[in-house]
Amino acid sequence: MAKLRLKISISLDGFVAGPEQSIANPLGKGGERLHEWVVPLTVWRSTHGLPGGEVNESSAVVAESLVNIGATIMGRNMFGGHPGGWNAEKPWQGWWGDDPPFHHPVFVLTHHAREPLRLLGGTTFTFVTDGIHAALERARAAAGGKDVSLAGGASAARQYLGAGLVDEMELHLAPVLLGSGERLFEGLGDDLRGLELVRTVATPKVTHLKFARSAGGAR
Amino acid sequence: MAKLRLKISISLDGFVAGPEQSIANPLGKGGERLHEWVVPLTVWRSTHGLPGGEVNESSAVVAESLVNIGATIMGRNMFGGHPGGWNAEKPWQGWWGDDPPFHHPVFVLTHHAREPLRLLGGTTFTFVTDGIHAALERARAAAGGKDVSLAGGASAARQYLGAGLVDEMELHLAPVLLGSGERLFEGLGDDLRGLELVRTVATPKVTHLKFARSAGGAR
Repeated sequence: MAKLRLKISISLDGFVAGPEQSIANPLGKGGERLHEWVVPLTVWRSTHGLPGGEVNESSAVVAESLVNIGATIMGRNMFGGHPGGWNAEKPWQGWWGDDPPFHHPVFVLTHHAREPLRLLGGTTFTFVTDGIHAALERARAAAGGKDVSLAGGASAARQYLGAGLVDEMELHLAPVLLGSGERLFEGLGDDLRGLELVRTVATPKVTHLKFARSAGGAR
Repeated sequence: MAKLRLKISISLDGFVAGPEQSIANPLGKGGERLHEWVVPLTVWRSTHGLPGGEVNESSAVVAESLVNIGATIMGRNMFGGHPGGWNAEKPWQGWWGDDPPFHHPVFVLTHHAREPLRLLGGTTFTFVTDGIHAALERARAAAGGKDVSLAGGASAARQYLGAGLVDEMELHLAPVLLGSGERLFEGLGDDLRGLELVRTVATPKVTHLKFARSAGGAR
């Protein structure tokens, strides 16, 4: 079956976003320090329509995370916009402009129903109000046999991890402290639900820790 | 000047000990999972008087952490015994038996004065009641030009980190969750006080992340 693959940047003290997230500061205070390793990379810049960049040991890890993905799931907080219902006159269209870097169906977990949002380049945002299992089912169907990417944020990742539905988890561990914000593993207890460390790629700026379901791991 | 070097095992969710620490369970519930990588190693077993063991990529990291250490500092909680004053009739002698694996002066941070405890093999425990700066000064003097090891636990490590006194920090990151217990970085805010990632050694069971003070880093 198509895998659900989580990739997320995390600080040494376990935060995946800083405090005081807002439209002006979507990653929270200091949250951009989690992503400093990726922004200079050609493989990241090209998917965001930016020229140039560099190639290092992280490039292959990022490239791998983009391969064989047929759909994406994200939480409402990651899609963004003011909390609560959608603005009827000018609904929030996401952070990514007219041509988002996904180029496949994206399913947004929300409590507020909304018509699908079709943007350029093959990205359609579909708003799912009936929970994480329903969103995963729809994403799997839309992925056409490919895998499903779980893009975050913290709450969506925690819910899927807690339900034991994540098949692969790539942590990009940034060697910094955030001190406060959103913790990835809050409330998950002492159990990775069958996920085991299978590969580490070490660089001076970030450590990529890949977890996968062990042969005998629970589903 | 002699460096203060912290080495400590930490979980993916930031805990250096599990919950409910006690004399029967000094590492707290589940805390032994942080140390599963080290116990099979020959280099660890030999310092604890045990035969056999294995050699892998972690061996050199452990061996390095033992080199050029002239004194150790630890918190009262790591030294152990019931909280509060010492039992006058049968005072706690530490976890390590008659011949502890230190073989050099050890300074224990405590609120309760006590005469030094001289054991076999060159280990003397000295009880310091006037704070972390005084303990570091005494440990440096006793180390005779060598470095000082900061052995933990969480509270002692946090205090020295918070004061910017740690020159080197080796985190042994175990790919497990503990869910609760003692967090290493609690209350330290978003600032590693000049410590930067300088080396990563990746193994299937543990990731060794070494931090050191940058050239321009604060003291």
